[in-house]
Amino acid sequence: MTALVRIVLIDPSHPGNIGSVARALKNMGLADLVLVRPRSFPHADAVALAAGADDLLAAARVTDTVDEAIRDCAFIAGTTSRPRSYTWEFATPRDAAARIAELPSTVRAALLFGSERYGLANDDLKYCNLLVRIPANPEYCSLNLAMSVQLLAYEVLVAREQPVTQRQIEAPLADSGEVERLYAHVAEVLREIEFEDRTGYLMERLRRLFNRAQLDRNEVNILRGILSAVQGRRRRAAESDGR
Amino acid sequence: MTALVRIVLIDPSHPGNIGSVARALKNMGLADLVLVRPRSFPHADAVALAAGADDLLAAARVTDTVDEAIRDCAFIAGTTSRPRSYTWEFATPRDAAARIAELPSTVRAALLFGSERYGLANDDLKYCNLLVRIPANPEYCSLNLAMSVQLLAYEVLVAREQPVTQRQIEAPLADSGEVERLYAHVAEVLREIEFEDRTGYLMERLRRLFNRAQLDRNEVNILRGILSAVQGRRRRAAESDGR
Repeated sequence: MTALVRIVLIDPSHPGNIGSVARALKNMGLADLVLVRPRSFPHADAVALAAGADDLLAAARVTDTVDEAIRDCAFIAGTTSRPRSYTWEFATPRDAAARIAELPSTVRAALLFGSERYGLANDDLKYCNLLVRIPANPEYCSLNLAMSVQLLAYEVLVAREQPVTQRQIEAPLADSGEVERLYAHVAEVLREIEFEDRTGYLMERLRRLFNRAQLDRNEVNILRGILSAVQGRRRRAAESDGR
Repeated sequence: MTALVRIVLIDPSHPGNIGSVARALKNMGLADLVLVRPRSFPHADAVALAAGADDLLAAARVTDTVDEAIRDCAFIAGTTSRPRSYTWEFATPRDAAARIAELPSTVRAALLFGSERYGLANDDLKYCNLLVRIPANPEYCSLNLAMSVQLLAYEVLVAREQPVTQRQIEAPLADSGEVERLYAHVAEVLREIEFEDRTGYLMERLRRLFNRAQLDRNEVNILRGILSAVQGRRRRAAESDGR
């Protein structure tokens, strides 16, 4: 397990956003939400947009200051799209998440998000170990608050799990022997139907195509069934032809 | 430059989500939005939530079918959180974005998103080269529609900014129209050779296999040539049969 991660919303003005944040956090397996001076909370809009993540809303802590919200946190990252006039390390969400994933599991990390209109105040930056800037269209770079939380929470989840593309298969992948027999069958049918190979690379190209698809055993069986059906038709026709 | 990317929302029911999607796309530097059978569009809620991305809303195209929405697209990825019972490649958003970034710049890619309540219909999957599953809390895995779009669009932006290995192709990728004509031809030949479809899912399975391989135009031509050769043989045989 990696560090616990708290999401801190500072001066959020729209309760709907708080609800959307709760849903986004629960989707990403996070649960620790702190609200600093929310304008309207609790609120029906928050519950509506939480869409089943109302347990996170109910458990959300409300504080008067940022300091109270993060006192027990050992790593603090602030998100900002504004340029800041002095020396800062601006991390991508991915690098920030990797930093969090590397922390020991006993550490609590916090991600700070400023108000919808102004973002983080300069005064809030003083708590931050790192500033995070979400990559965006330079001409339209201000994301909705809940969207920003969603992206960061997603990167944290991915960094923790490092999931890989998995292929869900209904049948074992065909082994090389099965695939070779399929190719031999294809070549046989092509000869029987007198298909003209203008380039001389026909089988090579068909192999590339099917190899790319990585056939499973069922698929090999289906294709061989079709090839046999073509041959059966042809042979019956040839027999009646010769009669 | 990498491929153009279109976002296709199928049966979106909440106009507010359409607005949030427009904003998310503009934030991430995307602009091509197509709506298939939106329940309410145009709508004031969409404009309100677009928050300055109303140019994308105004340019959004509305279609009656998925087919119309993607006919000129050569790579199609569908997002789903539901398990699907058969062979599919489930990519992470990151891997899907990398695949898109590798496509040549002349290719148009489409990302399909199903309705808020049901996600993509099984029937929509038949167009997909790849299915994308957003990693999430297994006990609460259904993200808001606009959030899902935001995450995918973000991954596309990040993937584009990184140098990538490009797939070397000898011919342009086949577009959806060409691929559909190939499938129609396959179905025709299967009927002619009286191939018995025991499960009733034969075409669906063949589509999955070939979609996974992402056919280029030469490959489609080779396959159609083979199909025609099978038919030519058969037709001549049938003629001599009837003689």
